This record gives sequence, structure tokens and C-alpha cells, in this order.
Amino acid sequence: MPDFKEIRSRDNSLIKLVSRLQSSSSARRENGLFVLEGLRLCSDAFLNGIRFDKLIVSFSAAGKYNNEISGFLSKTGECIKVPDNLFEKISDTKSPQGIIALCRIPEHNARGISSAGRYVALENISDPSNFGAVARTAEALGADGLIVSSDGCDPYSPKVLRSSMGTVLRLPVFVAEDFELLLKSSGLKTYACVVDSSAESITVQKFSDGCAVLIGNEANGLTEKTVMTAYRRVTIPMKGKAESLNAAAAAAIAVWEMMK
Amino acid sequence: MPDFKEIRSRDNSLIKLVSRLQSSSSARRENGLFVLEGLRLCSDAFLNGIRFDKLIVSFSAAGKYNNEISGFLSKTGECIKVPDNLFEKISDTKSPQGIIALCRIPEHNARGISSAGRYVALENISDPSNFGAVARTAEALGADGLIVSSDGCDPYSPKVLRSSMGTVLRLPVFVAEDFELLLKSSGLKTYACVVDSSAESITVQKFSDGCAVLIGNEANGLTEKTVMTAYRRVTIPMKGKAESLNAAAAAAIAVWEMMK
Repeated sequence: MPDFKEIRSRDNSLIKLVSRLQSSSSARRENGLFVLEGLRLCSDAFLNGIRFDKLIVSFSAAGKYNNEISGFLSKTGECIKVPDNLFEKISDTKSPQGIIALCRIPEHNARGISSAGRYVALENISDPSNFGAVARTAEALGADGLIVSSDGCDPYSPKVLRSSMGTVLRLPVFVAEDFELLLKSSGLKTYACVVDSSAESITVQKFSDGCAVLIGNEANGLTEKTVMTAYRRVTIPMKGKAESLNAAAAAAIAVWEMMK
Repeated sequence: MPDFKEIRSRDNSLIKLVSRLQSSSSARRENGLFVLEGLRLCSDAFLNGIRFDKLIVSFSAAGKYNNEISGFLSKTGECIKVPDNLFEKISDTKSPQGIIALCRIPEHNARGISSAGRYVALENISDPSNFGAVARTAEALGADGLIVSSDGCDPYSPKVLRSSMGTVLRLPVFVAEDFELLLKSSGLKTYACVVDSSAESITVQKFSDGCAVLIGNEANGLTEKTVMTAYRRVTIPMKGKAESLNAAAAAAIAVWEMMK
């Protein structure tokens, strides 16, 4: 077991920082850091080359996951051990495994969007489970990345990291302060998915390289501004009485049609 | 405002029954009843011809939603008013609206499965949000019903009713004690969705009337028994590193392919 610094006080500045990073997206933005919690997420991230600024483990976990933790050290800046009850204070889960890594938020500049790529663009998706499910779908079906408006879920929140099963660490995520502007400057052909039977069916679109499907907020859909400036308005034909598909289900079908 | 019986004691047998029905699927089965909570779900059910055995409203709601509640009365057996704090005891939500209807669980005999229909069959789906999302997808895309194994989510649990937005009250749901046997006796051609790149792609299937797509448990997929006896093993081709699609996303794509 490597050299661990021990922290025992909940007033310690690092402990306080972790708590803030767990709960606040603005704290994550300001510090450029996010929290990965749990052996599975940390292992996945490690295997994907993510560097851990700090690795924080509980006394119990240090014993129980000795091998795994030792494996992480080649990509870890600093190792810290804390008592189990202190770990519980900084954990975002009900039954903490006792492993947390602090990582730098990847910086994906909009210029990294490939003009020949196929992207999934999310405007103000507010439910972390939906966001995570769409991210998994995008990765599984081979999309080149996510473009997300900054008013939606924070991709690096604990809930999104969990529900996406770490996808957001493998797939480039471009966060747009101005969603419409970023899409415009990307040069991608954008297909706005709307619930409107007068829009063209998604089944008749000829998707070619350099495109994005746009999925809107769960309750309100895409903003008018985004729809107005899109290359095409497309819809998933519906037959039943249900008002609409769940956002993640609609996204699954749209991404499927774009990628197949 | 109609004649309301008032109940003020939490020891009242109806109050105790509602609490049990909210929390226990076996209580729902034994009594053949389920709980619809909230104005939206109750209104939808009412518009779909669902009869309310009993309508229970809080004192506040009786005033606030007087018009809506009066509208329900033509299909309501008995009306009960309870104090707000008693309503909170029987509510399944954090901010109760003050409206609960007790309804009979619809009985869908397996013989009601149409040999020319297209169905979505769920084996042991354990997450109510997934169950609800798949139900919405099935309805929105025009499937004829759900066939679900009895070891999965209870379709009439409060969480599924909410996440499905009441779909399970509009779409026939056939609950199978013996999933494989029911599918066999239905005569439907069954397409088992598996995560296995050696299985046939779902894109090359020629779905015709009289079929079902089978979706398995979130963690374990379909049981071997179910896969072995299926008409076809099919897979959604995947490209990325994600282990698999979320169950609801996989179901969305499978149902989409079956129905289009």
C-alpha cells in the first residue's frame, strides 16, 4: 500500500471541496474538477486514461480494495485516507464503497467538433437519468460526441456519471453556452426532433456525415429558436394516445436512425 | 359538491387499506385494487373510462379541485373526504395534490392476446422508470399490448403508473406467471433481444403481424429458457465501448423496428 496522507477533520479544506464538488455544478466549473465515486466508475475511468488529481479512500476501502487502489497509483497525484464516518460525509451514495477520485473536467473546444462527424445534441435535458441514458445510446450506436446546452444537466454531476456508466468520460461532450450558435458554427446539418405530425418523418431522412440530431427538454421540447434555425424539422411518427415518447426513448430512436 | 363521507381516523380500515395498496404489490393482487394518485392520472383514467371504486380527497383538494372532482362522480362508487394531514399519510408523493382513486385492476386474460397483434414482452424488468418508459414507447408507436413476467415490476405500482403516465391503463397488460409458457401459447413469433454480436441484426428481420419483441432484465437480460424457446435471437448492432444500451433505450429501438 502506497504512502497515504491521512485526513481526519471535516473542516479540512479538501474535505469541504469534495462536498461542494459533489453537490454544486458551479463549484465544479469554478474548480475545473469533478468527483468520480465508486470502484467501477474509477476503474473504467482509469482504463480510459483519466488522471486522478486526488484519490480519497476510506480506511475500510484501503484494506478491502488494496489491489485495485494500488493499480490506480500510476495515474494518481495524491492519495488520501479518511475514517469511514468522514468518508460518509463526502459520499453521494447511500452505501459508499469508500473510493473517490477527483478529476479534471475534460476541455472539449467546439473546434474539436468534426465536420464529418455524427452528433447527438441535447438542449436543456434536465433529468440526469435521461441524460445518462442518451449518452449511453450515443456511445453504443457509435455517435462521435454529445453537444449539450449549458442550461441542462451538468455532464459531470454524480448522477449523470452514474447513470451514463461513465460514458461522458469516453465520449467527447461539448458544452455550449450558446447552443444555437455553436450548432451553427459547427457546420453540421441539424435535425430538430419535434412532436408535430406535420413535420417530416425521421424515416425518410437521408442522414450523411456531418450531422446532428437535436433533442429538447423533457417538458418543453426544443426551443423555437433552435427549431427555426435547424436544417430540418423531423418527427417520430406516433400512433397511440401517449402524448409523446420519453426523451431518452425518442433520442434512442433518433440516434438509431441517424447512425444505422 | 356531492355527498362525502368523512374519515378522520388513521385507524380506519379504508385508510389502512390504501396505505397497503400504495406500498405492496401483493396487497394490490389480493384485493384486486390499485391506487391512482393525482389529478392528472385520475383525469386521464376517467377519460379512458376507468371506474373509481372510491375517490378520496383531502379537505383542501375538495375545495381547490371542486369542478374536476364533481366531473368524476358519474364513474365513482363512493366519495370520502379526509383531513390534509391524514391524506399525507396515505399519499405516495412528497407534495400530495390531495386526490386518490381506488380502482379495480383490469383483468386481461391471455386469450385476449391477438394472434395478429404486435406486442412488447418484458421479462423481469425491475426498474419502474424503465417499465414506464417502455410502456409509453409501446403505446406511442402503436403496439397492441404489453406481456410482462410477474417477477418484474408491478404495472399497477404508484411508480409505474406515474412513469408510464397512465399508459398501463390504456394499453392491455398481460401479466404472465409463466412467461415462456404464455408466449408459447400465444402463438406469436417471438424476437428475443440479446446483447450478442453473433445474433442476427434486428435490422434484417421481417416483422409481420403476430409477433413480439422480448426485452430482458436490466442487469441479466432475458433468461436462457426464454431465449432458447424464442423464434429468433436478435441484436441491436453496437459500435462503442458502452457495455449495452439502457433497457428502455434498447426497447425503444426494438419496438421501433417492429412497428415501422
